[in-house]
Amino acid sequence: MRVARSVADGLAESAAATDGLHPLPAVRQWLRRQQDGARYRIDRMPLAGLNDWSFDPATGDLGHRTGRFFTIRGLDVRTNFGSTRHWQQPIIDQPEIGILGFLIREFDDVPHLLVQAKIEPGNLGPVQLSPTLQATRSNFTRAHGGRAPDFLDAFLDCDPEDVVVDQLQSEQGSRFLRKRNRNTVVIVPPGDEAGVPDAFIWMTLGQLHALLAEPNLVNMDTRTVLSCLPQAPLRALRADPFAYRLAASLAAVEAGAQHSLGALRNFIARAKTDYELVTRTIPLAQVQGWQRSDADIARADGRYFRVVAVDVEIGEREVARWQQPLIASASGGINAFVCASLRGVLHFLVQARVEPGTFDIVELAPTVQMTPANYAGALPQFGDQVLDALACGGDRVQFDCAQSEEGGRFYHDANRYVVVEPPGAAALALPRNFAWMSLGQIKYLMQYANVFNVEARSLIACLATLQ
Amino acid sequence: MRVARSVADGLAESAAATDGLHPLPAVRQWLRRQQDGARYRIDRMPLAGLNDWSFDPATGDLGHRTGRFFTIRGLDVRTNFGSTRHWQQPIIDQPEIGILGFLIREFDDVPHLLVQAKIEPGNLGPVQLSPTLQATRSNFTRAHGGRAPDFLDAFLDCDPEDVVVDQLQSEQGSRFLRKRNRNTVVIVPPGDEAGVPDAFIWMTLGQLHALLAEPNLVNMDTRTVLSCLPQAPLRALRADPFAYRLAASLAAVEAGAQHSLGALRNFIARAKTDYELVTRTIPLAQVQGWQRSDADIARADGRYFRVVAVDVEIGEREVARWQQPLIASASGGINAFVCASLRGVLHFLVQARVEPGTFDIVELAPTVQMTPANYAGALPQFGDQVLDALACGGDRVQFDCAQSEEGGRFYHDANRYVVVEPPGAAALALPRNFAWMSLGQIKYLMQYANVFNVEARSLIACLATLQ
Repeated sequence: MRVARSVADGLAESAAATDGLHPLPAVRQWLRRQQDGARYRIDRMPLAGLNDWSFDPATGDLGHRTGRFFTIRGLDVRTNFGSTRHWQQPIIDQPEIGILGFLIREFDDVPHLLVQAKIEPGNLGPVQLSPTLQATRSNFTRAHGGRAPDFLDAFLDCDPEDVVVDQLQSEQGSRFLRKRNRNTVVIVPPGDEAGVPDAFIWMTLGQLHALLAEPNLVNMDTRTVLSCLPQAPLRALRADPFAYRLAASLAAVEAGAQHSLGALRNFIARAKTDYELVTRTIPLAQVQGWQRSDADIARADGRYFRVVAVDVEIGEREVARWQQPLIASASGGINAFVCASLRGVLHFLVQARVEPGTFDIVELAPTVQMTPANYAGALPQFGDQVLDALACGGDRVQFDCAQSEEGGRFYHDANRYVVVEPPGAAALALPRNFAWMSLGQIKYLMQYANVFNVEARSLIACLATLQ
Repeated sequence: MRVARSVADGLAESAAATDGLHPLPAVRQWLRRQQDGARYRIDRMPLAGLNDWSFDPATGDLGHRTGRFFTIRGLDVRTNFGSTRHWQQPIIDQPEIGILGFLIREFDDVPHLLVQAKIEPGNLGPVQLSPTLQATRSNFTRAHGGRAPDFLDAFLDCDPEDVVVDQLQSEQGSRFLRKRNRNTVVIVPPGDEAGVPDAFIWMTLGQLHALLAEPNLVNMDTRTVLSCLPQAPLRALRADPFAYRLAASLAAVEAGAQHSLGALRNFIARAKTDYELVTRTIPLAQVQGWQRSDADIARADGRYFRVVAVDVEIGEREVARWQQPLIASASGGINAFVCASLRGVLHFLVQARVEPGTFDIVELAPTVQMTPANYAGALPQFGDQVLDALACGGDRVQFDCAQSEEGGRFYHDANRYVVVEPPGAAALALPRNFAWMSLGQIKYLMQYANVFNVEARSLIACLATLQ
């Protein structure tokens, strides 16, 4: 098979198709059936009572008895980015690289993605739409002794020529220590639906985009893999001026864009030399400002997040019952792109941002990535503009939808994903770590791994719903 | 200025020009003058006697009194790559990101690079051709109290639109702990030669390529920056079948190549998940198998390298006199690309390789990267094919020239850089971590930082001399 070479064209076809192998109403029906028929029990429990997990007597680090999955450690952070130059915090250390993968198959010449309805212990829903495969290495090497995940072999044994996407991409740098997963999309030969378990369904990209406009339904792993897909020239599918502007912005990779690609590469390399990030893992028991009780690990002031625990029973998963820690954010945040017309072309304001767990000092982030409740005083740069635009609504808000973070690590963690266009944004004075980029430039740079952080990638996936 | 956008065309012009502002004989004359007029004294000295450098009493780590420049520490290495799964070694820890930069200016519409004749304490020569700017952060923030390097401001204050290249690229993963430098090329407006100190000269790319065929003359920093330059379609400049094949190989990015770009991305991501690399800095005094004497730090069996010291006096540098440690390799190595025609198109055999100091587990390396003296038994994969081809000579050897490693860290360290085409190479059975790539694909992937290691990048720069 050498289909991969023209895959962008097929994907454009797929994005335009809201009816596919199953019409959208049938997809929604399948989804409702998954939600109604889900068998699960997810109970909060004291952190101190976890089976199979324990606190290291010397360090207080919280780990699994096998040493696998993940460990919660302490991190000492020093950086010249932002106003706080030194702090300590708990962080998830998960050095293993897992796989987030979609299979793609053509039905009637239209590529479909194999989507899974999946429950994770931290999920709102709790059924969310996940990639075909979502597996940590502990998971697929069966550290837990369960059965292999569905479709694992299709990814491990695939012909490299059938691989559309294969990138190591980061996850939340504020919560994970340099964690990355392998985002991958693999084409499988045309065939029928036979052999697809009931929790799976073949969907067009257009159908996934439609569902992406609903809160907390398309999970984070799906969003990040979608953001990595190559994109053919957009057809404006909606009779909406913004859809036309988006298509023009996608076309502006060099001509029409505010900056050249060379200047954007310079922007990234310069940020990596402007900023320093020095982190050191320390014993969790010694992290300043954080306390452990039987119930959780938290700050006295309640800010940022807590480490909590759940007792889980889920039908039809690899393992029927387990317990595990999860991170519960203190309150929901806002991840927002500010956009504006520059030289008549729609641009997005991108932030070069340092986070404690960032793999390579800096990644490109949304214009604003904030949890307003964490700020006693002034909001971060451009935070006010975003809140104002959201308050005004109308044309100023192009996208505004709650999306969930990974339910395997985060407990009921949803952020508001937002694209706003405040009047006068084009004239904003930019600090050195902000730059305007066209959608075409964003998609161009998305070919590189570890350039955009997971919050930006989620927003990039959401932008596709606006075409 | 928006010249950067068509810079590849200009560079093709520059590569074709062996006569520029100064004809090649005049360039050679200037070079001889620099070599003959060089004022320097470089003496080996005992490691124990170094001024300004000392061994930490607790760890034995060797560092500068300011804590800057670099530190020699111990490293414990575990990996599933190669036959040795666990070892310890000294390593250079230099977390600061320096700048390796060329200025480019057009004379008579032909871009010229501003080349510097520079002495480094470890240089063979000792004058070598270096980029316009070659500065560590300690260097340009003047940790040593000297004056700022020439042309520093042209890089720090440039307009991002004038930046042609700006990439953080790795250096020797066997010697440095995740070290990277910023490889950058900046266009300056047309002007005259006024104000260029005598140690600098404007040269065309074609002139640099001619000098790259001479041993130990074009330094490592120059070679790595050259490898990052965008490349326009090659014109075969030599009446040589290999030059035509090289031009065709450059054109084969998708069509004509053995693998698709998607498959090559998969090759890289797969290697990063196949291999594990777990390193831990340890006290230099505790590194197993290595001993410190007054003279040096070395292994009892004399293999790999030694840490030695030099006492240096160089005229017309920022600081006239200093002492420093250097790494002296036990013997010279061979870095070789094996090439072959596949589907009628010239391809290069690329190795995904783990080295202890690699920034992100794996980088792409030459087919063979070996120091034959370090192997008691069998040579590494394809080592015999390279040595056989070199022994046969003739058409089997397309490039064979000694090139020096960085003289600021390595003492008289030269490796043989080689491109060979052994008969039957196209039919070789490849281990999972090898893949054939066209020159076009190599240059395409060179847009990404940290994909090719410094040895591969040197060879990529050398390939340009064969057009």
